[in-house]
Amino acid sequence: MESKGNYEFAESHPVNGGEGPYSYLQNSTLQRGAIEASKEMIKEAILKHFDMNKTLDSASFSNQIFLADFGCSTGPNTFLAVQNIVEAVQLKCQLEKPHHLDHSDDHHQNPIIFQVFFNDHFANDFNTLFKSLPPTRKYLAAGVPGSFHDRLFPNSFLHFVHSSCALHWLSKVPSQVTDRTSPAWNKGRIYYANAGEQVKKAYSDQFAEDLMSFLRARAEELVVGGLILLIIPTVLDILLPSDNTINMEIDLMGSCLVDMTKMGLVSEEKVDSFNVPVYFPSPSEVEAITGRNGHFSIESMEKLNIENHVLLPNLQMRVLYLRAALEGLLQKHFGNEIMDELFNRFSNKVAQSSIFLNPENHKSPFLFVLLKRNPH
Amino acid sequence: MESKGNYEFAESHPVNGGEGPYSYLQNSTLQRGAIEASKEMIKEAILKHFDMNKTLDSASFSNQIFLADFGCSTGPNTFLAVQNIVEAVQLKCQLEKPHHLDHSDDHHQNPIIFQVFFNDHFANDFNTLFKSLPPTRKYLAAGVPGSFHDRLFPNSFLHFVHSSCALHWLSKVPSQVTDRTSPAWNKGRIYYANAGEQVKKAYSDQFAEDLMSFLRARAEELVVGGLILLIIPTVLDILLPSDNTINMEIDLMGSCLVDMTKMGLVSEEKVDSFNVPVYFPSPSEVEAITGRNGHFSIESMEKLNIENHVLLPNLQMRVLYLRAALEGLLQKHFGNEIMDELFNRFSNKVAQSSIFLNPENHKSPFLFVLLKRNPH
Repeated sequence: MESKGNYEFAESHPVNGGEGPYSYLQNSTLQRGAIEASKEMIKEAILKHFDMNKTLDSASFSNQIFLADFGCSTGPNTFLAVQNIVEAVQLKCQLEKPHHLDHSDDHHQNPIIFQVFFNDHFANDFNTLFKSLPPTRKYLAAGVPGSFHDRLFPNSFLHFVHSSCALHWLSKVPSQVTDRTSPAWNKGRIYYANAGEQVKKAYSDQFAEDLMSFLRARAEELVVGGLILLIIPTVLDILLPSDNTINMEIDLMGSCLVDMTKMGLVSEEKVDSFNVPVYFPSPSEVEAITGRNGHFSIESMEKLNIENHVLLPNLQMRVLYLRAALEGLLQKHFGNEIMDELFNRFSNKVAQSSIFLNPENHKSPFLFVLLKRNPH
Repeated sequence: MESKGNYEFAESHPVNGGEGPYSYLQNSTLQRGAIEASKEMIKEAILKHFDMNKTLDSASFSNQIFLADFGCSTGPNTFLAVQNIVEAVQLKCQLEKPHHLDHSDDHHQNPIIFQVFFNDHFANDFNTLFKSLPPTRKYLAAGVPGSFHDRLFPNSFLHFVHSSCALHWLSKVPSQVTDRTSPAWNKGRIYYANAGEQVKKAYSDQFAEDLMSFLRARAEELVVGGLILLIIPTVLDILLPSDNTINMEIDLMGSCLVDMTKMGLVSEEKVDSFNVPVYFPSPSEVEAITGRNGHFSIESMEKLNIENHVLLPNLQMRVLYLRAALEGLLQKHFGNEIMDELFNRFSNKVAQSSIFLNPENHKSPFLFVLLKRNPH
């Protein structure tokens, strides 16, 4: 572990907390869809790649598995993901070492105990998360606050890492895009979709730096043989950023803000200085960054097949999906007063857009990535 | 570990959350005093009793120390306690194994890494706790929600357990004291102080059961040689329960409620069915219960010398101290409407009582207990 001596608060962009109508908890069906779609892939990945003996031996706690979900938010999706993983590992145990699940009192035959660490930013609503923990869960639970771009666990501690729909959040807006003197200045936009190549590159570079930090920290925290399972919103290599529906929607949101500057409701400067710190990488970008880290082998990298349009079946759900995810960020910059106006305008624009009129065209592919910690 | 298969929500009595004028965070100077007073004793205890080699070997994570604070509340006291412990362990390392604090990259010479687990009930305000984490802390931090009367950690996992001003909270009101048919029915009172022997015994039995549960769970979670440091509000063996000032104050609160029934502000039945689930044990009770558990040796058991009256110097602080601790419980039973009236009345009674008129008489002794996990 790099000894930093202390742990600073990182910039954070929490989704909407609580359980209200605009909460993430109530408006995350798309993210849930990704986890549901990955269930079989998780099972297959664990059966094929999770080496119980090797992984557990290296951790010395012979019947204990430490699992962390990075970017857990407030639930309920994280609980579903964790349950899928726990069940798959239990199945693997049953197949490999039936006595692991034996309830005998013999010290060496204790059942596997799962300790799950739920991580998210300091500003995440952990109170809601903890109150939502499934009463019938078969694991010990802990919350770990802090940025997943930093170290959060001791060395060689975790056996399994999961992160779903979280790594596309950048640690910060790339500084060039709000710098008037930079060729990457993103004037009149709040996002890289439909912006120039320089803006796109600034975002892409920031994503690479962030994923490097994530992998560097996890490489130290994982035992050799430990697995990382990532679900990342992606764009296919052959597509432009604008070919991802969510990207188009964030750009539409930007155009609403630009309209509001024209009506004097928001200052132009406010809009120019705001950018959404989200980036959807291509599979080849993720592959290249993982290669640069060098501590992981890529066991699997596949597109998740989910019927996105079914998960956001109507206009309201589509708008609430983005509101739950982005409102905190928008409020912090623009103040609370314009939120209803902004989301009304956004709702109207979405209603008239091809995204909504032709839902079959909805594209928000997810990338399923399975990494294994190398011995070196 | 007894495999329960699932983890139920336990009855909980959270102190006031947030950072407002009635919050625990703002009104816990007495509890802070106990921790400050114990600093030197903690240092001495760790230097004398914490066996680095034996304790760490048995955990196999050779340079990592896992520390848990049970009943952490929202801070800031927990951070002070943890800092005292971390500093004392670091000092012990320096004295025993100077290379432990060496910043060399050699795997066997890494500095000690502390992972601290902050535990409290599911209903505790963990958001406030996490936001209050000292930015300059020298440990990794996690929150663990759940009742400390149950298992919360894997087997042989923790090296050091701390719990201050928490174990006097009972897991529930003893059922007999609200049972009209029981000789222990506590009519016209909300507490055992100044009540009959049967009521006192019901409280005492519940405390014994709860401390047994706590020790049973911790015995499984601690490594052999691991330490438990407890600070428990106590009564001296020669004294009556009424000789503890806090006890007298809770009884005064009860008399305010009884007054309010006479004015028709609260129903008599409401008061009879309410009891404060707090018990201040004597040192000999704690000793006997620890003996019954059998997994720990008592390395130290002393009265903490603190000048209580200095810590609650005026009437307002004295009232706010109890309000922060008990309001949640009272609100749940009596509703929010009567809180201001109740605490005004309480404030008036305290102002006229000997507790306030003669602050030198303030008695709220704390018991400092150090236990070590036996090899058997």
